[in-house]
Amino acid sequence: MKSEDIEKLKGVLKIQSDIRKTLGEELRKKDFIEISSVILSPITDPLNHPIAPTNINCYGKKYSITQSMIFHKQIALRTLEKIFAFSPNVRLESLERKNTGRHLFEFTQLDLEIKDAKREDVMKLCEELFISVIKSVKKNFKKELRILGRELTLPKAPFKQIKYKDAYQKYGEEFEQIISKTHKEPVWIVDFPLTNREFYDGEDPKRPGVLRDMDLIYPEGYGEALSGGEREYKYDRIKQRILKKGQKPSQFKEYLTLAKDDLPPSAGFGIGIERLTRYICGLKRIEETTLFPKIPGKRCI
Amino acid sequence: MKSEDIEKLKGVLKIQSDIRKTLGEELRKKDFIEISSVILSPITDPLNHPIAPTNINCYGKKYSITQSMIFHKQIALRTLEKIFAFSPNVRLESLERKNTGRHLFEFTQLDLEIKDAKREDVMKLCEELFISVIKSVKKNFKKELRILGRELTLPKAPFKQIKYKDAYQKYGEEFEQIISKTHKEPVWIVDFPLTNREFYDGEDPKRPGVLRDMDLIYPEGYGEALSGGEREYKYDRIKQRILKKGQKPSQFKEYLTLAKDDLPPSAGFGIGIERLTRYICGLKRIEETTLFPKIPGKRCI
Repeated sequence: MKSEDIEKLKGVLKIQSDIRKTLGEELRKKDFIEISSVILSPITDPLNHPIAPTNINCYGKKYSITQSMIFHKQIALRTLEKIFAFSPNVRLESLERKNTGRHLFEFTQLDLEIKDAKREDVMKLCEELFISVIKSVKKNFKKELRILGRELTLPKAPFKQIKYKDAYQKYGEEFEQIISKTHKEPVWIVDFPLTNREFYDGEDPKRPGVLRDMDLIYPEGYGEALSGGEREYKYDRIKQRILKKGQKPSQFKEYLTLAKDDLPPSAGFGIGIERLTRYICGLKRIEETTLFPKIPGKRCI
Repeated sequence: MKSEDIEKLKGVLKIQSDIRKTLGEELRKKDFIEISSVILSPITDPLNHPIAPTNINCYGKKYSITQSMIFHKQIALRTLEKIFAFSPNVRLESLERKNTGRHLFEFTQLDLEIKDAKREDVMKLCEELFISVIKSVKKNFKKELRILGRELTLPKAPFKQIKYKDAYQKYGEEFEQIISKTHKEPVWIVDFPLTNREFYDGEDPKRPGVLRDMDLIYPEGYGEALSGGEREYKYDRIKQRILKKGQKPSQFKEYLTLAKDDLPPSAGFGIGIERLTRYICGLKRIEETTLFPKIPGKRCI
């Protein structure tokens, strides 16, 4: 590595460390409790796109590596009110995704969830966190941003909102990319159709088929930042949604057992730390955000 | 769960969140950079006791889940000076260990490493961190400690040091347990013999066969807190130590390639967050420190 590139990488790593710091501090100020991440479990997020499984034999029983902590977050809210975790996720993405500049097969999400919250509560929280993170980086890393050639603008809250239906109508299938490329500030996409998302995304009781969820899109072409929303939490509804998705309830046995007993209503989101770092540092590829990038298909330490 | 038990668990989780907060804050004050944890890699700590492997096929290549980040820490110091990570470790311990009250097959270590540091530097740092953590918990969680029935004393630095040789002579094979049970403050064990430890533990150049390493032992019977020390960092010495251990250099191929190029001298340690929580909260079993305990042999979400 050239010494110039090492200097750049150092700057990126310092900024990423500061991003984690700000996120943790702001959440603690709001009485969030940091819980441990979960790496192995018999249950994990099935996700909404094809992904290779990571089966591990532990003491003769079958476990997977966490693809997201969604179920554990809901279960944690049986004990606590507001939680977060810096949660490593492993997702063995298809090889086509190795060149997107946005996919690693191992990454970290700040994953958070609030009991009894509505989508609007977590959207507001997200905007506050986002602005705090950018303020801190702009204040403390002037030299590093200059070396990276990054002019970072502080967005104004509330961020613009576009309904999925309107985005699709106006921009077609590639709406996410087009919205990202044509905007200078982050944009929310809300109200995804039920058929497009995971079974745990909460359906709007007043508008069947429409979800109480959202994605945040980075400006300047950096693409998706996060997904989140309200959750399904009643046993019957969860089971129905699993079946509607063509998935097997037996795959989520422990989760369903707990849902039958009691899961509280909640809302939350998960935001990828590497993608956030990429956006903040203005980097071309996500591999540049971490010391040990995991590039789909490549042998990486 | 009885509401009394839920109250206790809530207290423990809040204290654990505060422990993470204090550790992170203190390290950042000392210019440490938080790096991402590593979950999958072709290279991981072989450890010094028998453990079932966690082989995963990623894109046709063989990976394991991190047993400790030791190699990645040393490699990270090629770019940064002082680093830490809250690093989830998976160790498929033998079933005999399920009843020790001290073993989970998944847990989190605060893992840190300092370039060009000596053992004494990281011992001092550890004492400072330990005292800061206890001060914060005593100040902010009076009610929770009362509910847990825990009277927590603030230890005085520097902690007592006992050489391995002397500990073994005085107490025999079970020295760790005996020292833990008979002391009211933490105790360092230093200078382990080379044959007892992993190949990466640095040998004292002035005393062949003796390591520049240490363990910290909790008082009151809570057992081992952490392991650490100076590291082997020169290619020839690392290779020699691997062979001496009866291990295969090919198992550490990527690590050896980087060591041949350049690894800096360093010292560091890893301290288990769940064990620290258990000690601070005065809990009987490590399962009580976390929402999703992974008990060897049991199917755990």
